[in-house]
Amino acid sequence: MKDFAFTGGRPDPYTFPTDGLIEASAEALRELGGSLVNYPGDNGFLGMRELASIRFERREDIPLPIDNISITSGSMQALDLVLGTFINHGDTVLTEELTYSGTLGLLRHLKANLVGVPMDYRDGMDIDALERILKDLSRQHIHPKVIYTTPNHQNPTGAILSLDRRKHLLALADEYDLLIVEDDCYGDIDFVPNPTPDSLFKLDRANRVIFVGTFSKILGAGVRQGYFVARPPYHRMIHENRWDAGTSALASAIVASFFKKHLDEHLAVTNAAVRAKCRAVIETLASHVSDICTWTKPRGGLFLWIHLPETTEMDILDMLAAEKKVGFSHGSAFHYQSLPIKCIRLAYAYCHVDDIPEGISYLCEAIRGSQVASVGIAAG
Amino acid sequence: MKDFAFTGGRPDPYTFPTDGLIEASAEALRELGGSLVNYPGDNGFLGMRELASIRFERREDIPLPIDNISITSGSMQALDLVLGTFINHGDTVLTEELTYSGTLGLLRHLKANLVGVPMDYRDGMDIDALERILKDLSRQHIHPKVIYTTPNHQNPTGAILSLDRRKHLLALADEYDLLIVEDDCYGDIDFVPNPTPDSLFKLDRANRVIFVGTFSKILGAGVRQGYFVARPPYHRMIHENRWDAGTSALASAIVASFFKKHLDEHLAVTNAAVRAKCRAVIETLASHVSDICTWTKPRGGLFLWIHLPETTEMDILDMLAAEKKVGFSHGSAFHYQSLPIKCIRLAYAYCHVDDIPEGISYLCEAIRGSQVASVGIAAG
Repeated sequence: MKDFAFTGGRPDPYTFPTDGLIEASAEALRELGGSLVNYPGDNGFLGMRELASIRFERREDIPLPIDNISITSGSMQALDLVLGTFINHGDTVLTEELTYSGTLGLLRHLKANLVGVPMDYRDGMDIDALERILKDLSRQHIHPKVIYTTPNHQNPTGAILSLDRRKHLLALADEYDLLIVEDDCYGDIDFVPNPTPDSLFKLDRANRVIFVGTFSKILGAGVRQGYFVARPPYHRMIHENRWDAGTSALASAIVASFFKKHLDEHLAVTNAAVRAKCRAVIETLASHVSDICTWTKPRGGLFLWIHLPETTEMDILDMLAAEKKVGFSHGSAFHYQSLPIKCIRLAYAYCHVDDIPEGISYLCEAIRGSQVASVGIAAG
Repeated sequence: MKDFAFTGGRPDPYTFPTDGLIEASAEALRELGGSLVNYPGDNGFLGMRELASIRFERREDIPLPIDNISITSGSMQALDLVLGTFINHGDTVLTEELTYSGTLGLLRHLKANLVGVPMDYRDGMDIDALERILKDLSRQHIHPKVIYTTPNHQNPTGAILSLDRRKHLLALADEYDLLIVEDDCYGDIDFVPNPTPDSLFKLDRANRVIFVGTFSKILGAGVRQGYFVARPPYHRMIHENRWDAGTSALASAIVASFFKKHLDEHLAVTNAAVRAKCRAVIETLASHVSDICTWTKPRGGLFLWIHLPETTEMDILDMLAAEKKVGFSHGSAFHYQSLPIKCIRLAYAYCHVDDIPEGISYLCEAIRGSQVASVGIAAG
């Protein structure tokens, strides 16, 4: 029996460039050889930092400051290091009401006081609402430390923060003396040619933004090649909190060697594959549950967000989906207060595209079968 | 002008197995391919854990519990995770009076109360002294949390904790309810065929020992492939503190693929090379400064520890050595209280063997030139 795994932020396995990486490994190892006996240093392998800068320049027309980049084990370690440095027990952190479950877990581990900001699924965080929240907190003499946001292809909603909102957000960060952690881990997974708005890091004029990125989301979570970019004094402050002696230069050198040659080509191939999967999910949903569900239509990223009927019995949905081996993520995992919202997240890049209609049909059946009303009928 | 770098715990670059790793990369990537889109998980890549177990069995005749192994970015991240989990601000930690500067830095960062245990350069930590210290602390109602020790080829002294002392140490850990963190990062770098005594982890019968190892020290610090082994409940406790989503499976798969085939062969080649370097250092020291210095004669590991005359002016030594581009580490960096002891550590595996007589001769000249008496004569 097939598995239909719509869980986890994994890229497409079928466009994984095995041959290209074998070639890149040989090239990187020939070039580095015995110099791999050296420590990579806290900043990590230079070639990888150059790659991060090239990737930024390709999107934003300006390079990144190479010395301010620090390579990490995926964007998750970057978040761990950055948030762990600035957030102490009880500090207030603002984020979209719906956001990445991993960051929420980390923030809860750090015992942060989480404040969710309303958002919409097209333009992202509602910055007017943020302003009201900041005013309100200020009245209570609460000074938030950090705003965590994913402006591009947000997880789980796929929202893209509009340029106006980005500018307004930066102005508020200035006014309220806040640090913004910009998680751009999905930035490169775009299905349309028109670019996302300028990054907060680029727009920032007041050293308010720490930028987090990764190459894992367009290649493989198993390669663990993320990074953060922080200007002084933040870079040093974060490194005072870093004790792993740096990220594998072996893995960095291979990934850098591959993408320095093949970034555009790989993005074209893998984004086309992921886009086709996203479409297959949407088409199947449309032909099965358009009468009872609504969902986002992402223009990039790895996730689709489904609103289920309020009558959905989540335990029954889990059971029925598990019977058909369909995996998905509960919406509550992405809610800053873990509210039991009647939503689910589908990660569409992992399943084979040909299996998607079958898997999503099963999911749709499970959704229908988990409506309290229909259970009542079945029982009656 | 040549560099003579006797700094940093780096293995031999000239026996770095470039070709073998290129082959291993191709093999690992062909085998894994698209499955590298998956997260490695907190425990890390299975093949790497299997390798850690094979390595342990080769030395200790028993395998490691695979599910209790967690792959990390070098042994340094293992120490960061393990010590960071168990040590809170003000907790007392016992260690050899002289120990790894990285661990000392980490423990100071954690604001531990460091207590140094006397040691000798042959048999390691003086466990009778440890017992007296534990009694004394107990009288003061101080309950230490952790003993950190490097029983094999200790950094910086090369000491090997004797079997009797290992058994006594475990008995004391039991009596005083202590956790032992056993850092075996140099265990495989042995110049003689007779094995080091059984590891504390193997001898332990009361779940007192967390074992830390690495493949970086016999291959390259740049590969960052360390691990810890902790039995329940410690393994889970440490993972509750781990937020990097695991170590690069790409790097792990390559290193595991290489060592599963070539561990013995590589150790034979690289240990012979490192041994020749160690000998060259000792011979040069013997022919130049045997009248004023003493030094350890390591049977393994990467370090040699030199006692300088008490009349050594360390600033002048630094200056004279720097003029000839000879790098070494100050003894104070390895002292738990950073005392300005008149000792230096040489890491002998990095320099080319043919350059060692020249480099060490310069160092010996610098040692002679930095004696307060000789400065007096030169000035007078």
